[in-house]
This record gives sequence, structure tokens and C-alpha cells, in this order.
Amino acid sequence: MAVYDADPATRARALDTLAAYAEDLNRVGLTVPADSLTRVRIATTLADCVAHADYVQESVPEKLDLKRALFSELDALVPAGAILASSTSALGMSRFTAELSGRGRCVIVHPATPPHMMPVVEIVPSPWTDTAVVERIFALMESLGQTPVLVNKEIAGFAMNRMQGALLIEMFRLIEAGVISADHADKLISDGFGLRWAFLGPLEGVDLNAPGGIADYLHRFGHMFDDMAMEVREPGPVLTPDLIARLDAEMRAKLPLEGIEAKRSWRNRRMAALQKMRRDMQSEA
Amino acid sequence: MAVYDADPATRARALDTLAAYAEDLNRVGLTVPADSLTRVRIATTLADCVAHADYVQESVPEKLDLKRALFSELDALVPAGAILASSTSALGMSRFTAELSGRGRCVIVHPATPPHMMPVVEIVPSPWTDTAVVERIFALMESLGQTPVLVNKEIAGFAMNRMQGALLIEMFRLIEAGVISADHADKLISDGFGLRWAFLGPLEGVDLNAPGGIADYLHRFGHMFDDMAMEVREPGPVLTPDLIARLDAEMRAKLPLEGIEAKRSWRNRRMAALQKMRRDMQSEA
Repeated sequence: MAVYDADPATRARALDTLAAYAEDLNRVGLTVPADSLTRVRIATTLADCVAHADYVQESVPEKLDLKRALFSELDALVPAGAILASSTSALGMSRFTAELSGRGRCVIVHPATPPHMMPVVEIVPSPWTDTAVVERIFALMESLGQTPVLVNKEIAGFAMNRMQGALLIEMFRLIEAGVISADHADKLISDGFGLRWAFLGPLEGVDLNAPGGIADYLHRFGHMFDDMAMEVREPGPVLTPDLIARLDAEMRAKLPLEGIEAKRSWRNRRMAALQKMRRDMQSEA
Repeated sequence: MAVYDADPATRARALDTLAAYAEDLNRVGLTVPADSLTRVRIATTLADCVAHADYVQESVPEKLDLKRALFSELDALVPAGAILASSTSALGMSRFTAELSGRGRCVIVHPATPPHMMPVVEIVPSPWTDTAVVERIFALMESLGQTPVLVNKEIAGFAMNRMQGALLIEMFRLIEAGVISADHADKLISDGFGLRWAFLGPLEGVDLNAPGGIADYLHRFGHMFDDMAMEVREPGPVLTPDLIARLDAEMRAKLPLEGIEAKRSWRNRRMAALQKMRRDMQSEA
């Protein structure tokens, strides 16, 4: 496996970053095979990196021109039959692969943050992505222990960020309207639904909350969602400078900026322990 | 502590239900004090149940007339100075306590499902709830290991169900539009964000995903949320009979109705183990 970045300093750090990720997993007994790191080669040119690839994962910044130029270069450099995947979370692939002769092998494979702790990956084919390519991606991701999900249309935000976005937008509105503080809104998830959603999706979650499952639940309580969806609201931005300043003040009072790196490690230790627990309880069952 | 239900069969089951909850917790080492169950008395009349109470938690069905009649009765029966709390998730308290002489001691204390696994409780005062009552509720809930959050306005769905609702509505729309299957939408949470949200609220989560915290994150990526909030959409119900039928078919194919009870136990075992893990990791830190 080869890694390349145009910036030499980033290339120099890459193995340390991977070693830290492996340590997160090893610490809780999610053992990373000993040769995983020695199998990674840092390439010094893009051509050298991808010359013998059968799978390429692009992760450059979210700039359309950059992606378009890079995919054009990759399509020329990478052996026929190899898959060209993009990590983009925002740019539909049809916007930067339309002109490529190998456009059928291009597909979005969008991971979540932090990627070594989040199994889910969003697979978003363009209108011209080969079905066989999508099938190979699913098999590859599953063989790696990831959870691929299929997004059938290149809509803005795809599905992952739209779902997170819908929740955050409602939180922004409640905070803006003075209904709840940012801290208490967070706790409604982290000491509430998040404990359920660590094992069950939201639909599976409500499915268990009525004797007749989700249909029964929606017949009993669905009016609550319809009422919300029927609220009349002028479309408009939610993130006013004032709201951002309030969120910033409230978050920084809880966690000063210099504590963010330590809190990321705190998060990673807990997410790794949760993954281990899920795996152990699965093998018990 | 006394429990009362108008239905004798429900009263007869109450101690078994509590014993099963205690067993969920004991199994993973979240030890319930041995005398917890023996301290619970099943009362055979409402008057007997509340005669010496200093805290009453009402949990009758979500029917306004029922709540209004019961709170009127409780206000007469319960000693002055005791708090009258409602479990309602839908009915603002000002709709059924306005006429009571003791309306200042009435407050909504809304737990989440399953209540013995979800620390969060939503505290929703009415315009006339005494500030001192809200303070006592916060102290009481914290002493019990619960996480009280304050909702300042009696809006429909309060904050908890509005936040869940916003996420579910987006999922319903994506599934309805053929963007994603119900199963894959669920996995975006249960194998994705849910793993983060088991420890961190959504705002704390994004706060860690940019070097400068949430303000930095929103300046970089906030346009995504503003774009979503600016989408023009006619207000209207989301739950068509066709969508409910599709959700029901997909959920029942994964889990037949007769498996729901076992899946609830599966969920409770995992939620209890997660609570234990959070507690252990907290005391390590």
C-alpha cells in the first residue's frame, strides 16, 4: 500500500499518524496486525504511488478544480480496471469526472470522522459509475470491516451530512430561540438518544418503542413529525454571526482551545472501547 | 416510595417490571441497592399512594382531559410543598394546570425510553412554575444520577423530540425520495455518528473536527447547513401511508414482530454495558 501527498512535511508525518491510529485500536484489544504499518510505503511522486494500484482513494481539499485536475491525471496514470475513489463529502462526482474515458470506474467512497473508529462509509455512484464497480467497493469495504451504505443520488450533503445537518439545524434553531442552551442540547443526545444510537439506528430505535413496531409507533406518534414538517418557516440561513459567537463562547467556556487535542484522544479511547464492546457482545450472541 | 395504577393488573405487574429493570443493571455491575425493591409499596388507591409524598411523577396516557382531571385531584390530595411532575412528552403543562391553586409546584419532568438506561430528563417549567421548584428538581435528578436539561419554552415536542424528529423527518424524506434504504439510513447512525454521540453531543462532536473548534468548523463547513436550511420546500406531512408501509415492510423483513421483545432485551443489555463502560472510564480519568 502506498501513500502520497504533494506536501513533503505531510508525507513525513504520515506513518506517525497511522501509528497513532493503530495505537488507539491496540490499546483496547482491537489488535491491528503487526505488519500493517510496515506494508505502507510513502511514495514521493503521484505516478509512483499509483502505478500498480488496483484501488486509489483521493482525499485532497474540497476544491472542484483540484479534484478535476487530479482525476484527469489519475485516469491516465492508474492501470485500467483499478477503481478511482474520492473521499469528497460535498462535491458530486459527476462534476469532476464527466470528461474522463475511465469515468465508469470513478465512485465516491466517503468516510466519517474519525475514520479508523467509524465503520460507516457512504458510497455515492455517479450516473455513469459501473454497477460492477459499486459491487466491488461493497465487497472491499465489507472485507475491511467497514459498513458501506449506498446513496443512490448525488444530492447536496449526500445522506450522512444531510442527516447530521438536519439534527444540527434544529439544535441551532432551538438555541437561537432561547429554548435550550448548547450544553443541554448536546446532553439530550450524549446522555440520551446517543446511548441508543450506538447500537440501533433511529428507525430501529422507534421500532422497539411500540408493541406493533414502527408502523404502530408512527400511527400513534407520527403526527408529531408531520406537525413539525408542516410548520411554516421562511427558508433562510441559520448560522448568524451572533449565533456562531454564542456557540463559540459556550463551547470554549467548557473546553479551552488548547484542550481540543486531548479531548480528541479522550473521544478516540471511548470510541475504540465501544467498538471493542460491540464486537465482544456480538461474538457472545 | 409508592406506585399506583388505576388498572389492578398493571399494579400486580409493577414489581416484576421494576425487578427486570434492576436485573438489566445488576447484570453488568451497575449495582442497584438491595433494598431498592423492598422500599417500593404498591398502593391500591391514588389517595393512599400520594398522601405522604414530597414528589409525585404522573405517567398517564397523553390525553389532555385525563391529565387535567388528575392534576386537579393531585393538587387537592398531595401535601403542600410537594412537587407534582408530569411525564408528558407532548402536552405543555400550562394546558392542564392553569386553574390550580398549586400550579406553581407543577412541572414537566420528561424521561427518555428506556428510562432506566437513559440518564437524560427534560425539565419544562410552565410560565407559572416556581423557580425554586425547578431548582429542587435539578438537585433531585442529579442526586439520582440522572441528567436534567432545562427547556425554557413549552413548544411542541419540547427539545428532545424536536431533535429526534428533525433527524427522523430527514430520514423519511431521503427514503421517500429513493436516495437511501431505511436499513442504510439507520446504519449511517448506528455504525457512524451514534458511536461519537454515545460520548459527545453533536455540537461537541463538530467542535473537535476543526483546529479552531466550533467557530472554525462553522466558518469552514457551515454553508452546508445554511444551504440545507435555505432549500425551499412546501410545508406538508412526511408520513404518507405508502412510506409507512415501506418502512414497515423493510423493518419487519429484518426483525419479525415476534422478535421485538428479545431485541428490546438485546438493546437493554448493550445500553447497560455502555453505561458501565462510561462510568468505569470516567473514574479512570
